[in-house]
Amino acid sequence: MLRLALVPGEPAGVGPELSVRLAHAPRDHALVAFGDPDTLHAAAAALGFPLRLCDPDEASDAPGELGLVPIPNAVAAAPGTPEPANAAAVIEALTRGADGCLRGVYGGLVTGPVHKAVINDGGIAYSGTTELLAQHASCDVVMMLANEIVRVALVTTHLPLRAVPNAITADALERCLRITDVALRRDFGLVRPRIAVLGLNPHAGEAGHLGHEEIETIEPALARLRETGMDLIGPLPADTAFLPAKLRGFDAVVAMYHDQGLPVLKYSGFEHAVNLTLGLPYPRVAVDHGTALDLAGRGIADPSSLIAASNACAHMARARQAARG
Amino acid sequence: MLRLALVPGEPAGVGPELSVRLAHAPRDHALVAFGDPDTLHAAAAALGFPLRLCDPDEASDAPGELGLVPIPNAVAAAPGTPEPANAAAVIEALTRGADGCLRGVYGGLVTGPVHKAVINDGGIAYSGTTELLAQHASCDVVMMLANEIVRVALVTTHLPLRAVPNAITADALERCLRITDVALRRDFGLVRPRIAVLGLNPHAGEAGHLGHEEIETIEPALARLRETGMDLIGPLPADTAFLPAKLRGFDAVVAMYHDQGLPVLKYSGFEHAVNLTLGLPYPRVAVDHGTALDLAGRGIADPSSLIAASNACAHMARARQAARG
Repeated sequence: MLRLALVPGEPAGVGPELSVRLAHAPRDHALVAFGDPDTLHAAAAALGFPLRLCDPDEASDAPGELGLVPIPNAVAAAPGTPEPANAAAVIEALTRGADGCLRGVYGGLVTGPVHKAVINDGGIAYSGTTELLAQHASCDVVMMLANEIVRVALVTTHLPLRAVPNAITADALERCLRITDVALRRDFGLVRPRIAVLGLNPHAGEAGHLGHEEIETIEPALARLRETGMDLIGPLPADTAFLPAKLRGFDAVVAMYHDQGLPVLKYSGFEHAVNLTLGLPYPRVAVDHGTALDLAGRGIADPSSLIAASNACAHMARARQAARG
Repeated sequence: MLRLALVPGEPAGVGPELSVRLAHAPRDHALVAFGDPDTLHAAAAALGFPLRLCDPDEASDAPGELGLVPIPNAVAAAPGTPEPANAAAVIEALTRGADGCLRGVYGGLVTGPVHKAVINDGGIAYSGTTELLAQHASCDVVMMLANEIVRVALVTTHLPLRAVPNAITADALERCLRITDVALRRDFGLVRPRIAVLGLNPHAGEAGHLGHEEIETIEPALARLRETGMDLIGPLPADTAFLPAKLRGFDAVVAMYHDQGLPVLKYSGFEHAVNLTLGLPYPRVAVDHGTALDLAGRGIADPSSLIAASNACAHMARARQAARG
C-alpha cells in the first residue's frame, strides 16, 4: 500500500485536529505522521474521535489509523497559543518526513500549516516550507496552487511588487516553465500539457504600449521553449486569461507574480485548494491555509484542504510510479 | 421618461449590432444613439430586426426604437474592417453625447466598444474613452468594473507594472477612494458604503516583510479618510480579499492595479460586466469588451454587456435624480 508522510505542522494550530479528521476520511493510502503523539491524542480527544497511532511499517488506510514517527514537542501544546520552544520539533518533523521521501520510504509528503513567525521566534531561520524543502533536496522548485478549476504556477512568489519586474528574467521563466511542464507530464499524467503564460504588464503589454518585458523577455523565452516541444500559449493578458471558457483549454496557468495568479484560484475554490511544490524528487502537497490559531481546539476547522492535499499527493505518487513502470 | 445617450462606437465592430439588439431589449428608459444611421440600419437588416430611428425628443422605450443624433461616417462601414477615416465620427459621437449629458439633456452616457489603434491611425490622439471623457469634463475620474458579484475600482489603470509602485501615492489613493465613496453613495444609493482596499504587495506587505508601501503610504491614507467618515477595510491581501464569503461584506473593492483587481471580476461574470466611469458630472457606463472585429456582422455577438450597461446607467441616473430630490 502507498504510504505518505504527513507533517501536521504547528502544534498549537489546526494542523493536529485536521490530521485526525484526515485519518478518518476515506482514502486509498496509508499516512505516517511525523509529530508529537500527545498533541495528536489530545486533538482526537477534543474532537471525540478515536485515534490509533501505530508503527510506521504497519500503517494502513483503516479509519482513524496513522503510522507515527514520534517527534516530541519541547513543551505541551496549547491550542491557539504557539510556543517558540516547539519550533525545533516542527522543523525536525518536516526534515525527517522529507528524508523519508528522498529515501523512497514514503511516496510523498503532505504538510499542514506552519506558523512562520513562531519558527523565527524559536531562533530558526525559516522563510517557508517550500523554501526549506527546496534547500533540503538541493532543487529548484516551483510553487503551484490548484483546485478543481485551475492550476496556477508562479514565476515569483513572496516578493515586494517593486522587485517583481527585475525578477522576471529569461532564466527564471525557463526554469519555472520547465519544472511546471515536467511536473504536469510526470505527476499529472498529461501527455502534452497546455500551459497558458501570463504577461507581466496589463493587456500583456499591448504590443509595447504598456511595457516592454513581454517583447524583450517573455516572448523570446516562450519561443525557445516551444522549440523543445512545450505547448505554451501567451503571453496572455491576465484579466481575460481566467475567463472560464479559456481556462478549460489550459492544463495550467503560469503567472508572473503572486497577486496576478492567486485571486481567481482562491475565489473559485478556496476550500479544496492545495499548495504543490513542483521540482522535488517526490510529490509534496500542502494545505492552502494558515494555522488558524483562532479556530484551533474548537473542533470547527474545515479539513477539506488537508484531505484534498492527501488525495492529490497520493494521485501524484501513483502517477510517478506508473511513469517509472 | 429618462433618456440616455448611446454611442455605438467603432462602426466596423459589434457596437452597431449590439445597439440594435439593445433597442429590442426590455428597458425602462429611452435611448438616443449618436452615430451613423446607415450603419445602424445595415446592422438591423443583417440581424433581420426592425429598427426605427426617430427624433431625439420623441424617443421612447418602445422595442426597436432609438432616438438619433446623426453623425455620418466619412466612408461606409464594413463589418470587421475598421476604417481610420471614420475615427473623427466616432470621437465626435462621444463628445456630442457627453455634451448632451453635461447640459442635462440626457441622464447618462452608454458607450459601446471603440478601437484605440484605429482612432490613432485616424490621426487623433486617444488613449481611451474614460480619459477622453475625463478631459472633456475637466474631472478626476475612477475606472470601476462591476458585475453581479463584485465592483472593482482601480487606483492605477493602464500602466506598465514597473511604474505602479511609484504611482501609489497618498494623493492618488485619496482621490480614488473619495471618488469611489461619493459614487457609491450618490449613484448606488448606499448610505455608508463599505470599501475593501487591497495592499500593493503580496500578503499586503506582511507587516513590512514584503514591502513598505502599506505601512508608509496606504495605511496612513486610510486612517486620514476614516476620520472623514469613510468605512474602509484594509489594506487587505489581494488573494484572500476575493474569497466569496468576504466579498459579500464589501460594497466595492479598490485594487491598486489592473491585474490585481480584474481577473476575479472577469472570471466571476464577464458577460454581464460593465465598465463605469466614476467622478463625472453624469453616470457613464460602457461595455466591458472590445470591438470583436472577428464577430462583427455575423449576428452572433452577445449583447449582455451593453444591455447591462444601459440598465446600470439608468439605475444610476435615477439614483442621482432621487438624491437631488
